[in-house]
Amino acid sequence: MTNEQELIDLKEKLDSYLAERNYRKIKAVMEEIPEADAAEYLEGISIDKAMPIFRSLSKEKCIEVFSYFEPETQEVFINSITDEEISNIIEELSVDDAVDMLEEMPATIVKKVLKNASANTRKLINQFLNYPEDSVGSIMTAEYTDLKGTMTVGEAIKYIRSISDNRETIYTCYIISPSRQLEGVIELCDILACENDDTLISDIMETSIVKAVTTDDKETVAGMFSKYDITTLPVVDNENRLVGIVTVDDIVDVIEEEATKDIEQMAAMQPLETPYLKTSVFTIVKKRIIWLLILMIAGTITGSILGRFEDTISAIPLLVTFMPMIFDTGGNSGSQSSTTVIRGLTTGELECSDIWKILWKEIRVSVIVGFSFGLLNFFRILLITKDPDKITIALVVSLAMLLTIVIAKSLGAVLPIAAKRLKLDPAVMAAPLITTTVDVCAMLVYFGLALKLLSFRL
Amino acid sequence: MTNEQELIDLKEKLDSYLAERNYRKIKAVMEEIPEADAAEYLEGISIDKAMPIFRSLSKEKCIEVFSYFEPETQEVFINSITDEEISNIIEELSVDDAVDMLEEMPATIVKKVLKNASANTRKLINQFLNYPEDSVGSIMTAEYTDLKGTMTVGEAIKYIRSISDNRETIYTCYIISPSRQLEGVIELCDILACENDDTLISDIMETSIVKAVTTDDKETVAGMFSKYDITTLPVVDNENRLVGIVTVDDIVDVIEEEATKDIEQMAAMQPLETPYLKTSVFTIVKKRIIWLLILMIAGTITGSILGRFEDTISAIPLLVTFMPMIFDTGGNSGSQSSTTVIRGLTTGELECSDIWKILWKEIRVSVIVGFSFGLLNFFRILLITKDPDKITIALVVSLAMLLTIVIAKSLGAVLPIAAKRLKLDPAVMAAPLITTTVDVCAMLVYFGLALKLLSFRL
Repeated sequence: MTNEQELIDLKEKLDSYLAERNYRKIKAVMEEIPEADAAEYLEGISIDKAMPIFRSLSKEKCIEVFSYFEPETQEVFINSITDEEISNIIEELSVDDAVDMLEEMPATIVKKVLKNASANTRKLINQFLNYPEDSVGSIMTAEYTDLKGTMTVGEAIKYIRSISDNRETIYTCYIISPSRQLEGVIELCDILACENDDTLISDIMETSIVKAVTTDDKETVAGMFSKYDITTLPVVDNENRLVGIVTVDDIVDVIEEEATKDIEQMAAMQPLETPYLKTSVFTIVKKRIIWLLILMIAGTITGSILGRFEDTISAIPLLVTFMPMIFDTGGNSGSQSSTTVIRGLTTGELECSDIWKILWKEIRVSVIVGFSFGLLNFFRILLITKDPDKITIALVVSLAMLLTIVIAKSLGAVLPIAAKRLKLDPAVMAAPLITTTVDVCAMLVYFGLALKLLSFRL
Repeated sequence: MTNEQELIDLKEKLDSYLAERNYRKIKAVMEEIPEADAAEYLEGISIDKAMPIFRSLSKEKCIEVFSYFEPETQEVFINSITDEEISNIIEELSVDDAVDMLEEMPATIVKKVLKNASANTRKLINQFLNYPEDSVGSIMTAEYTDLKGTMTVGEAIKYIRSISDNRETIYTCYIISPSRQLEGVIELCDILACENDDTLISDIMETSIVKAVTTDDKETVAGMFSKYDITTLPVVDNENRLVGIVTVDDIVDVIEEEATKDIEQMAAMQPLETPYLKTSVFTIVKKRIIWLLILMIAGTITGSILGRFEDTISAIPLLVTFMPMIFDTGGNSGSQSSTTVIRGLTTGELECSDIWKILWKEIRVSVIVGFSFGLLNFFRILLITKDPDKITIALVVSLAMLLTIVIAKSLGAVLPIAAKRLKLDPAVMAAPLITTTVDVCAMLVYFGLALKLLSFRL
């Protein structure tokens, strides 16, 4: 489908057929449209209307549509279909889709599904369910095409034509030894491009293979996909035996998840593992309260430092009115820099060794911003304040503004790199912690300057 | 390559060959390893050492390696090779790689390159360079496989075998009419799986086509890749004529860029278009200063509201020492909620219509967090403060803390959705603006409570 409008028209058409109970026409449309759209439509109507439509679909369509359902829809459907239908679905789903589904389901449903799977499928699913959550093993699939090096091009094409009912897996073929060790890789296009049908596969296969081990971190593997511009990656066990492949569509999800996790950490939250709307209030509290508590304690320290300046504040309460502006600008300046550095470290655009280049750049940026904001405030205070010492106060505020911005941007640049050097996640040094740190510095600078320059009032 | 260690070993081996000036062995290794690794190695050594190695490579390897270079390396190489070599490279590079390269180069280099391109290539490159920066036209490539509906399966396989020297493009074939209108799509595996070689392509092709128009936004198109789990997408012009395809490896880059842009906007920066280390200080200032200025002005408003409580502050300066803690916790609570909602809206996990569900969840979370933090502070203040009215002060601080957290989390939940409803980017309502908004509310609540409960001291 090209655009939203087409999707809306489609939905209206299906709705009107549904009102007429014209299931034959609905089936015809469903078989035509992409599975993702069919699944979306079925999820939007009630289960008693969706079920007869779902059952009327061809077997292949059924399974494809099912794999696009949200986990909770899958659960509802599994609870409503016969054991035989469950068995059909689980045997035909690719292993990674089956595992994704089972990971989200309550134990009773998992039991019911596995009971209806063949012994082989059950073994495979159990093996895949056992890979650690963040490992590449947890996202790989077992449906790949393996060839023998002793096959000829002609034999290979014949073999591939006989098995090519699964689109994602025949385009890159893996050559394995009798003991299933990964020996080589060949693209289907290179097999097809070979002009002599008697050429041995082992003579044209690539033997330098970009590959991963089942226990590799899935984010590292995602990085390999962008570095090598590949669409499939073989996964081997510790004995170099081929156990599965990862396809790029699963990697797209990993990249999205990774960005979400980074963003959550940068806002001082531990990442949620389940969708927000389905996560209980207590789990959300748990994921958020620890950082809030740490930062609150940091805030009380800031407060107690501020307490040391109580006399200054009592004497010149006007000073307090400039605090939010200076502190906020400092915090925002610092979080701009730290965000740039954290994201750069994540995408690999910046390295720890760039620290001096980054710091020098941030210092120049901060001096320009600091001078502009300092001057602006100097004249603003001269214009609108009625205090007899307004020139001195303007000077204190402007200087504090300049220094705070320079300190904030320098800390924002340096702290994420320091965190990385200390093997911490640089995202820890995002806006919240930077803001608190900058608050303390800004306060010391501001009241320090006030004590020096306005001492005659104190 | 599997891991870092292998890459380090490889580099050492190449370094030792280079020290011996054994170019034959280097060439042998280079031809074996993935192009991305070869390009990385050449970028790490000086140009006078890299150039002879680069020139010794086979023509295909040369072009592949060149396409993996960073733009500045490409520029150096183009300046050092002959016109004939330039012509070879530009003719063989895929159009999207050529366009990506030229977009990053100074005009003189672009001229030099285009001068050495054939008339056809030049025309195509110029056409692609003209698509708007964020459009799908700017990331598509022109190398795709088109078939005619009147071909038989046997003819199609023969045709594909004759042209299959380019891996990314033969696996999905597009069926076009004589006037180049897109009529259907077929996966190579479905052609291969067809048992009867005389079947017409038009009989087995898919006619419901997921496609994009050249001017579509590339982020929208990236969403289609995850929704439909596809690896290539045809791009048509306004007359439904096929003009190019987008492949999933380019989409991976779009998703990364999009996440970076979101993160930058959430930290109150306009996104940088060039890599940070290569962006001038003035450009960085320009991208950051506008939001800083807006937020600084907001900070002065906060300050002037604070000014209204000068008398309260003078009378009980102790109150000031709790401000950082309450305001920081409020800001952090609010930005946690807004970050969750903004990211959910971006990934499509949350919809504007979920507003009440989100608000209700955030209110419950905030009441739990608020009560815990309120109680904690009540007893802490009782324990450590020496003020005669410490119970009342503890009450003011605890109540202000509870109310601030509830207000902050509610605003954090609602404002991004409100922004989206007003057709603004929800990312605008991220930490910085939420913090400033929450500051004002927190101040009014805190001093409002103080004025009420501590009025006997004022």
